[in-house]
Amino acid sequence: MFNQIDPEAKIGQNVSFGFGVRVYGNVEIGDNCRIGDFCVIGHPTVRPGSTPLKLGAAANVRTHTVLYQGSTIGPDLETGHHVVIREGAVIGENLRIGNFSDIEGACTIGDFVRMHSYAHVGRGAKIGDFVWLFSLTTLMNDPLPPSHLSAPVTIGDMVTVCVNAQLMPAVEIGRGALISSGAVASGVVPAGAVVTGADGEIAGQVRFLMHMESRTRHPWHKHFADAYPSHAQARIAALGAEIDAEAANTLDI
Amino acid sequence: MFNQIDPEAKIGQNVSFGFGVRVYGNVEIGDNCRIGDFCVIGHPTVRPGSTPLKLGAAANVRTHTVLYQGSTIGPDLETGHHVVIREGAVIGENLRIGNFSDIEGACTIGDFVRMHSYAHVGRGAKIGDFVWLFSLTTLMNDPLPPSHLSAPVTIGDMVTVCVNAQLMPAVEIGRGALISSGAVASGVVPAGAVVTGADGEIAGQVRFLMHMESRTRHPWHKHFADAYPSHAQARIAALGAEIDAEAANTLDI
Amino acid sequence: MFNQIDPEAKIGQNVSFGFGVRVYGNVEIGDNCRIGDFCVIGHPTVRPGSTPLKLGAAANVRTHTVLYQGSTIGPDLETGHHVVIREGAVIGENLRIGNFSDIEGACTIGDFVRMHSYAHVGRGAKIGDFVWLFSLTTLMNDPLPPSHLSAPVTIGDMVTVCVNAQLMPAVEIGRGALISSGAVASGVVPAGAVVTGADGEIAGQVRFLMHMESRTRHPWHKHFADAYPSHAQARIAALGAEIDAEAANTLDI
Repeated sequence: MFNQIDPEAKIGQNVSFGFGVRVYGNVEIGDNCRIGDFCVIGHPTVRPGSTPLKLGAAANVRTHTVLYQGSTIGPDLETGHHVVIREGAVIGENLRIGNFSDIEGACTIGDFVRMHSYAHVGRGAKIGDFVWLFSLTTLMNDPLPPSHLSAPVTIGDMVTVCVNAQLMPAVEIGRGALISSGAVASGVVPAGAVVTGADGEIAGQVRFLMHMESRTRHPWHKHFADAYPSHAQARIAALGAEIDAEAANTLDI
Repeated sequence: MFNQIDPEAKIGQNVSFGFGVRVYGNVEIGDNCRIGDFCVIGHPTVRPGSTPLKLGAAANVRTHTVLYQGSTIGPDLETGHHVVIREGAVIGENLRIGNFSDIEGACTIGDFVRMHSYAHVGRGAKIGDFVWLFSLTTLMNDPLPPSHLSAPVTIGDMVTVCVNAQLMPAVEIGRGALISSGAVASGVVPAGAVVTGADGEIAGQVRFLMHMESRTRHPWHKHFADAYPSHAQARIAALGAEIDAEAANTLDI
Repeated sequence: MFNQIDPEAKIGQNVSFGFGVRVYGNVEIGDNCRIGDFCVIGHPTVRPGSTPLKLGAAANVRTHTVLYQGSTIGPDLETGHHVVIREGAVIGENLRIGNFSDIEGACTIGDFVRMHSYAHVGRGAKIGDFVWLFSLTTLMNDPLPPSHLSAPVTIGDMVTVCVNAQLMPAVEIGRGALISSGAVASGVVPAGAVVTGADGEIAGQVRFLMHMESRTRHPWHKHFADAYPSHAQARIAALGAEIDAEAANTLDI
């Protein structure tokens, strides 16, 4: 193994490093983590007052990934290859993030979030629990680019953002909403709504979505709970019931 | 040179390695391959029963690329930089794949396929011969995301998918079709059709496309055969004639 | 430090290298540059007659970046992580280019250009000064893909191209125009125009854009000059006045 690991880094029990790993000193790595080949852990930042990178236990960081100092990441992180997570992020339990994804920093991400490839989280975004971001989704933050204004997005729990959907600056997406493939979401999206098209139309309710061939309902809290560990099941059931009730009271479409 | 090459890897004649290359043991590399700096060849997978990575002769694998074990790749592979090809792919002769592209695994790819940057091939896709995927094309596979359903795409021979086009789950694209830039394709696309727009309209026939300034017809099998080696020319001519005949019999637009 | 630096490379004063850096011989690096971990500087190209990579002073090249030989880059380059710049590019002062961006070569880029993540500059593009390209913008160059025709884009000074906008082959974008998020631009775009939607409608004038909540005008040459060094201020003011006058004389929308 050929690595460059700063002796000041605090490294837990049973941590494995691939080939050609760089670990900076301002880092705390939890137990049972795996760091892949050619990763950079604790990349410095020039932003003032940076705290250490705190990487929770049992992370699986795949090759060519860059994690900055100054972020706090919960247990069971799983990254794809060539991922970048910048400074100032606060990330919950069991984030799974796909190849080439890019978290720009100073954002808050809940528990059990999943991102596919090329997901781009603009600086300052707030993302709830059990959120899915599919490939090529962009979370914008500049309302009049290029400006010094900052208007990051807010995404509620159990939201799904499909491939190539774009989230405009300052959008507030209610819990359990589904932003369809290629849709553009802006303004306020009600809980449990389905958003479609370039004009972000509210086209229906997530709780009525069904895959006709298989007679499968949209998976949240009914068909997809098996993708999460047992200790998450009670939260999934409670959140799902709350979102269904909120949508039934709000949406008339 | 500083590399970490497992002595169990089977490496052909005249193979060159860049600087900082990792090669795992479960790998068979053909003759005359070039592996660029900071590549990972034969990345392990936790999926059960993985076979070796078989990389055909004369591959040119550019820097920071990750090839998993359990895939079989034909001769004359050419990758850009920062490419990922996961396990279970079966890939034909002379794939050229651009920077930051991502083949998610368990897919079948024919001969002489070209992909530009940020092409994303979802798990299970079936891609024919002489297919082109331009930048930011996504081949989806989940019909009700996030679900456990799998509905990968099928792309016939000589199909062109232009920049930022999105292929919806389960789409079947007939031979020789052209999916225009930004179009969304779903359902069944007839052979030789031109698809445009967010609603995937069948807007014309590929065999009538012409670049007016240069009076150039769409290149397939008429103007673009020079991009392929001589042993591919007979296949190109035969396929082109078949597709033209099929389109003439099918499309009335 | 473990690096492989060709002794033929010409390296200026006070240049720092990260861990695992490869520098080829056909390279001239200016003073005070920083080269990050796992970068490849001066990557060879098979194109004939390649000149050296000339990298101006005070560059900050972040990790996993690949710069080819045969390009000339002005001072104060700043890259994100995993950037690729191919051969034959001529780039001015103080380019800032985001993570995973891809400059395909043989292009001309002015001074003080900014690109965010996943910006894709097709071969041969001409980009003016003070241009911004946001995430997922693609600058195309093939008018009838796949062809041997080349029709690269031209972008005037102070143009803004927003997230996921697509620039069609041969588009000529006048100075100071703004291509909105998700818009598709083609043909000739007048100076100072706002372009929206998949049909590239000219929807207004940039000089009338205002962020209503903060009563902020579009930043160019009025509110954003503080993002550039003092020696650029006179150019910003002069260019802004010229563009406003040109738009006032041209656009009646």
